[in-house]
Amino acid sequence: MARTPTFTTAEGRATRDAILDAAIKAFATRGYRGASIDQIAAEVGVSRQGVLHHFPSKTKLLTAVLDRRDEQDIQHHEQMQEAEGITLTNAVRATQDYRAERRGLAQLYTILSAESVDPGHPAHEYFVDRYRRIREMFTEFIGGAQAEGRVTKDLAPETLAVALIALLDGLQLQDQIEHEAFDAEQVLSDLLDFFVRDE
Amino acid sequence: MARTPTFTTAEGRATRDAILDAAIKAFATRGYRGASIDQIAAEVGVSRQGVLHHFPSKTKLLTAVLDRRDEQDIQHHEQMQEAEGITLTNAVRATQDYRAERRGLAQLYTILSAESVDPGHPAHEYFVDRYRRIREMFTEFIGGAQAEGRVTKDLAPETLAVALIALLDGLQLQDQIEHEAFDAEQVLSDLLDFFVRDE
Repeated sequence: MARTPTFTTAEGRATRDAILDAAIKAFATRGYRGASIDQIAAEVGVSRQGVLHHFPSKTKLLTAVLDRRDEQDIQHHEQMQEAEGITLTNAVRATQDYRAERRGLAQLYTILSAESVDPGHPAHEYFVDRYRRIREMFTEFIGGAQAEGRVTKDLAPETLAVALIALLDGLQLQDQIEHEAFDAEQVLSDLLDFFVRDE
Repeated sequence: MARTPTFTTAEGRATRDAILDAAIKAFATRGYRGASIDQIAAEVGVSRQGVLHHFPSKTKLLTAVLDRRDEQDIQHHEQMQEAEGITLTNAVRATQDYRAERRGLAQLYTILSAESVDPGHPAHEYFVDRYRRIREMFTEFIGGAQAEGRVTKDLAPETLAVALIALLDGLQLQDQIEHEAFDAEQVLSDLLDFFVRDE
């Protein structure tokens, strides 16, 4: 992200952060297309121009929201990589915990990824890239676990990677639609116990 | 759906159908909140009032779209139930084929289910009910398959039901974001071969 004079005052930074928080909330509940700059401005208590001073368009605001989410993700992944002897089970559980802590961001991710199916959506390329990277990461991780005899070799690592990502996304959607309907943690835990021999 | 005088002329029915088709397309690409009555009217070539004559509000239009989708689903399920000796593999594959044939409706379902995570969304209750019904249906089906020794009994039928629905939803999302990235049919086929003994 390019630095702008906006960043030079603490007040400017605080307003920028407040706009980003309000944008995450607005996008997470109404989607990118359903949210409006006016609504975000009203939430923060600034004018429409006040928002546009920090983010010249709704697309720029979306990019900044996704950048912020990525920064947090990178921190999370670095923490995972630094952890000694991380197993597939621990990695998946840590990802679930991480998502649970950030319910607002998880909901943002659900709606933006669904909207981005349309090639005309400003986050389309972002999600294409994102899923490619996650598939690669999971494929490598699962291949390693297979080599160590901790995951079945009856399925290709790419197949298991696609399926595991699909399972996590789909579980998250069902859990978000009705949180009390079933225990998503338990379902995931039972499936991991069935599939993975980390011990 | 209550009958209205609109249905009494062939022209009225044709316009109503054209509005529904345009609404499905608009909701599937821009979501419920991103789509507008004006845009749908322009697509059909009628006035805004022309749309509102058939569907007095955007919410009523959404309800009609979901009703139409449900009618098609019910037909699909009846066909499945009438099929002799239907197996879990065949049922899942038929559902995938059915979804593939209706890519537009599948995309509609992806975005509306994601939007409906917000309790304020007009389709929220619809999706809560829908997921409850699908979970019950899959749980019953999987329980039967387990009793016949065709699916592992190491996992509870409810757990497998939640996981299978999550897998199908998540696979659909990844496939819609980048259709060429992997072979969703093959992934599903490999997983079914691994899990199910239908032969």
